[in-house]
Amino acid sequence: MEGSGSVVGLEVLSEAECLGLLSRGCVGRVGFVVGGRPQVLPVNYAADERGVVVFRTAATSLLTAVAHQPVAFEIDGVDPAHRTGWSVAVQGQASELAEPGTPAGDRLRSVTEITGAPGQRDRWFAIEPEIVTGRRLPVHGLDASAGWYEGILG
Amino acid sequence: MEGSGSVVGLEVLSEAECLGLLSRGCVGRVGFVVGGRPQVLPVNYAADERGVVVFRTAATSLLTAVAHQPVAFEIDGVDPAHRTGWSVAVQGQASELAEPGTPAGDRLRSVTEITGAPGQRDRWFAIEPEIVTGRRLPVHGLDASAGWYEGILG
Repeated sequence: MEGSGSVVGLEVLSEAECLGLLSRGCVGRVGFVVGGRPQVLPVNYAADERGVVVFRTAATSLLTAVAHQPVAFEIDGVDPAHRTGWSVAVQGQASELAEPGTPAGDRLRSVTEITGAPGQRDRWFAIEPEIVTGRRLPVHGLDASAGWYEGILG
Repeated sequence: MEGSGSVVGLEVLSEAECLGLLSRGCVGRVGFVVGGRPQVLPVNYAADERGVVVFRTAATSLLTAVAHQPVAFEIDGVDPAHRTGWSVAVQGQASELAEPGTPAGDRLRSVTEITGAPGQRDRWFAIEPEIVTGRRLPVHGLDASAGWYEGILG
């Protein structure tokens, strides 16, 4: 299992570290399946202290397929202090949330500053975490930091 | 379909833009399915001018499940000049490559500077692209650039 202590050459992050990284992030990627094919799409998101990930999307987006499905959620970044990269993965079940204004919506607003892309993005989803794993790994090119940043910044 | 001209509030990237971004990147995420559950894991990668994505992993990694499976591959980043973010998604079929030293391995070496994480990572894979899409989107917090970078840098 990725994220276990047996991962080759990788430092495994504690759950507390994972939840801390999740709570500070704002961009992640949702992995889901449509018609038997995996999809990965980036989203603006927010996470609460339990690692519940919330995001929103447009009614026309493929992402609306996530409701009631198992999904994966991933964030990653670099750690300049340690000259490494890190990643956190959440696996869980996605569900659609009630309109903001209901208790669920209010809770969302209280934990998020999600803005997402412009346009009508009024479908809200949450991922209830079942497995949260993280790892820290050396990143190619981080010494000459352009290497990593070229990857991230295009 | 995400990446089509109908995406709400998003600018669709041309295939040439997508291939250019792919060829310059070095970190991406592979989306795949294991036991019916989607997984997303980051990898160091390289891509050639056709968008063929190559990466390697350890024999013990979940990623070895990708062989002969449909997979998704995603990169994203920010575009400071336009104060936007962008993402490129590849959908295609993954296959395991021969050992470096064979013609396929030599080709890989010629297009890559993959290093990956330490440890034995001697399983090489390629993703043959079937669909390549990209989009540019406003990024929350980019005005106060710490917003985006907090997400990326943890």
